[in-house]
Formats: sequence, structure tokens, C-alpha cells
Amino acid sequence: MQHRAIGVFDSGVGGLTVFKEIARLLPKENLIYLGDTARVPYGTKSVETVQRYALEAAEFLINRGVKVLVVACNTASAVALPQLRQRFQLPVIGVIEPGARRAASSQNQRIGVIGTEGTINSRRYPEAIHALLPDALISSIACPLFVPLAEEGWAEHEIARLTAVEYLQPLMTENIDTLVLGCTHYPLLRNTLRRVLGDGVSLVDSATETAKSVQQLIQQNGLENPDSGGQHTFFVTDVPTRFEKVGQSFLGKSLGRIEQVQIG
Amino acid sequence: MQHRAIGVFDSGVGGLTVFKEIARLLPKENLIYLGDTARVPYGTKSVETVQRYALEAAEFLINRGVKVLVVACNTASAVALPQLRQRFQLPVIGVIEPGARRAASSQNQRIGVIGTEGTINSRRYPEAIHALLPDALISSIACPLFVPLAEEGWAEHEIARLTAVEYLQPLMTENIDTLVLGCTHYPLLRNTLRRVLGDGVSLVDSATETAKSVQQLIQQNGLENPDSGGQHTFFVTDVPTRFEKVGQSFLGKSLGRIEQVQIG
Repeated sequence: MQHRAIGVFDSGVGGLTVFKEIARLLPKENLIYLGDTARVPYGTKSVETVQRYALEAAEFLINRGVKVLVVACNTASAVALPQLRQRFQLPVIGVIEPGARRAASSQNQRIGVIGTEGTINSRRYPEAIHALLPDALISSIACPLFVPLAEEGWAEHEIARLTAVEYLQPLMTENIDTLVLGCTHYPLLRNTLRRVLGDGVSLVDSATETAKSVQQLIQQNGLENPDSGGQHTFFVTDVPTRFEKVGQSFLGKSLGRIEQVQIG
Repeated sequence: MQHRAIGVFDSGVGGLTVFKEIARLLPKENLIYLGDTARVPYGTKSVETVQRYALEAAEFLINRGVKVLVVACNTASAVALPQLRQRFQLPVIGVIEPGARRAASSQNQRIGVIGTEGTINSRRYPEAIHALLPDALISSIACPLFVPLAEEGWAEHEIARLTAVEYLQPLMTENIDTLVLGCTHYPLLRNTLRRVLGDGVSLVDSATETAKSVQQLIQQNGLENPDSGGQHTFFVTDVPTRFEKVGQSFLGKSLGRIEQVQIG
């Protein structure tokens, strides 16, 4: 069991921010990544459709014998985690709970959450934060333009700053001290968000938090890979060209071999 | 045969701009629209994947007995038209040829083309325009942010204007007199594009041109519906909620009943 890989999936390339953190914290683990690039994005699609896609992606990784499943996509974590845990026997970690736990350390209990339409409409972040901090004032805002801005390479462009001002205005007047980046693309916008919000707001990056949860789970359950390992394998459902190009800017290095597969 | 409907498909909601024009020119025709909303967008996906999706969408409409197939999606028209024409017997009309024909009336033969990555990379517009106007100087630019801006309802927002300035700068220095709006979403940005480019540039809207081609084809082949007809039916591959909301702003009126189907 310990020799098995950790499986990570996302609708596309965004989950590589989670993948990168896991690889950093657990350099000996073999990792398999699946990006459902033929059907990306999930964030604008319905609960039913995202649940179906998530089950199909999970099945693909489980058929490859992974020991832990990481749902590195906020939208899929928001709407499909109970189904995945019910259907499969292995440990399943999503990005919402780790992010919510970190957000619950807010000092003034005024917390902002940003994400895709699917994630925000699910209300999973407010639910998870309220479970830990019942009196927290939580404001959630969907920011659909942040993903295309990040993928265009405009994360630090003036247009990204103006877009952030437009979206975050309501959060700024509410005096939040914590903002949850509820989409795996958003860490790429970190500098821009900081410029708009100032240094007083702490940014919760679910990638970092999720990787810590994976590390904890692996250690507490004696699932560490005893070998040197560290092999990384990438699968995508569309032709890899675009994933390779954008993925490189996410990982900060070349991804190596990427294989195209059909799921669903 | 004449009693049959005209089938129209797009990756999502954008093709409704074409649908609307067809309905205006041919009020007696029954129209069936399919939006592949579970897999939208096509514009960032590979040629192979878009070809597969287009064949599946066409098959769905043909199984419903349509007399003409309209590919109301620039990306699918750019990469899948030969395959569709080869596979199926009925007349297939895409949006590229009608737009190119209109663009070829450029006075100074300096023409700009904007579209998705898939459409621009295919080079189909320059090919089609050069076939009519061999010496034309054609500059093509992919504008990935225009679709999310239009869907966000920000088509006339200052952020859309700045984005247009950023994308169109190279076209402005080339003194173009014609700009092809090579994506069915772009007519929504018409006012913004006009503000940026000035009145000297004529904007070619493939929706209008394609509808004229459909009208011509129907008339020349004696395919007009002899009955009063005018029934409009909508199918989508994801839950209809979002399509309904965004579609209303495209059509300028309620869409009526929308049915969810699975294809592929």
C-alpha cells in the first residue's frame, strides 16, 4: 500500500498549484495528476454535471491504484466530496476543509471567500468556516474573470487589478482580515490581490493548506513511501499542448511526459 | 423535407446570436438549437477534441431530422466543417465562409480577424479571405478574455474597453478598415470595439452574414417551410439554468422550454 502513488485531479491546470505543494512537502511520494482538460472548466457547470465528471476522474485514478485521492479543484470539492467518499474506500481529501480551517484563525472573524460560481453557490466554505467559528461574518463573491486572466498570463496586469477592485469592493467595505482564495488559479493573482486589499488582509491559499493535510494524513496512517520514489505522472483528457504550456508557468518547470486519456 | 426544422449548434450560448438572426430572416422556419454547455468552451480545446464534439452535436440534430445544419460556432466551423460535410448528406453551413465573403469587400484590403485561440490558430479566416482577395493584408489576434467579459455582463464596462485596447493595439497601427468578429460572443462587444477602433473600421458580424447564407440556401433549394411554423426548440447538455439566464440577454427575450440531453 505505501508504495502506491497519491492521485490528484482537477478540471484542468489549476490543480497543479496543489500538486506543486504536495511534491514540495512529500518529495519521496509518487504522484499521479489528472487534468480533465477536454471538459474544463467545472466552475460554471451544474452540480449534477460536476459530480458526474468528478466520479469519472476519481475512477480513473483509483483504477491506477492510488492510495489517497486529492480533489485539487474547489468546485469539485464543493459539490462532489460526499459522493466520492461514499463511492470509494480510500481516503479522499478536498481543498475546502483545509482552507476553511486556516480561515477560522481570523482575528476579527470577518472573512471573505472568493471562487467560481459553482463553489460560491454551493455555500460550502461558509458552512465549513461556521462549523469552527459560528459567529464569523462571511462574505462570498464569485469572480469568474480571475481564471481567464491568470491563464492569459495577465495576473499582474493593470486589467487584473481593476477587475479585482470591481469584484472585491464589497469585501473591502466589510473590513475583512482574511480572504480565502477558493480556486486553485487564484494564488497566481496573489500580488494583485495584495495590492488591492493591502497588507492587513491575510490570504488563505488552499493549495498550501491542502498539501499540509495530505502530509498529515500520510504520516498519521503510516502511508509514507519507503522508497525514494518522487515520480510524477501527468494525464490529461485533451491534447497536452496547452496544458504543457500553461502548466509550466504553474509549476515553474517543465512537466515531462504528459499522456492523453479518455474518461467518462 | 420542407417541413423539417433547421438545426443550429454551438458549444454554448454564443450561437444564439446566429440563431436570433436566422429567426428574424426566416420567421416561418422551425429551428432546433443545441448548446453543448456541459463541455463549453471549444475555443481553448484541441482540433481533435472539437472535431469529436462537433460530430456528436451534429449527429444529435440529424437524428432529429433537420433539413440543414448550421454550425453557429466559429471554432467548430474552423476545424470540423470538412468532417461534417463528409460524414453527413445534408447541407452544412458554417460561420467562417459568410464572414470571409463580407470581409472581402474591404476597400484598403487591410483586414483584422479576432476570435478564440482555436479559430485563430486554424488560419481558416485568412485562407477564406485570401481565396477571394489574394493580396489582402490580414492580421489575426486571439482574444480569450472577450467571451468571459461578455458572459459576465461587462461588455460595455471600462475593463472591457481596456482589454480591447490591449488586444487590438497591433490592428490599430496596421490601419485596417475591416474587423471580422470571429466568435459568436463578440457582437455583444460591438459598442466597446467601436469606441476603441473608431467609426472608420467596419465590423463584420458573422451572425448576420451566416443567417443570410442560410436564407439563400433555403430559398435556392426550395426548402422553405410551407406552413406557418416558427417553432423554436432548445437543447443543452448541462442543466439549463445558466443557459436560460445568459441566453435571455443574447436573444433579448425568454427562451421558453429548454431540454437537457446527453450526447457523446
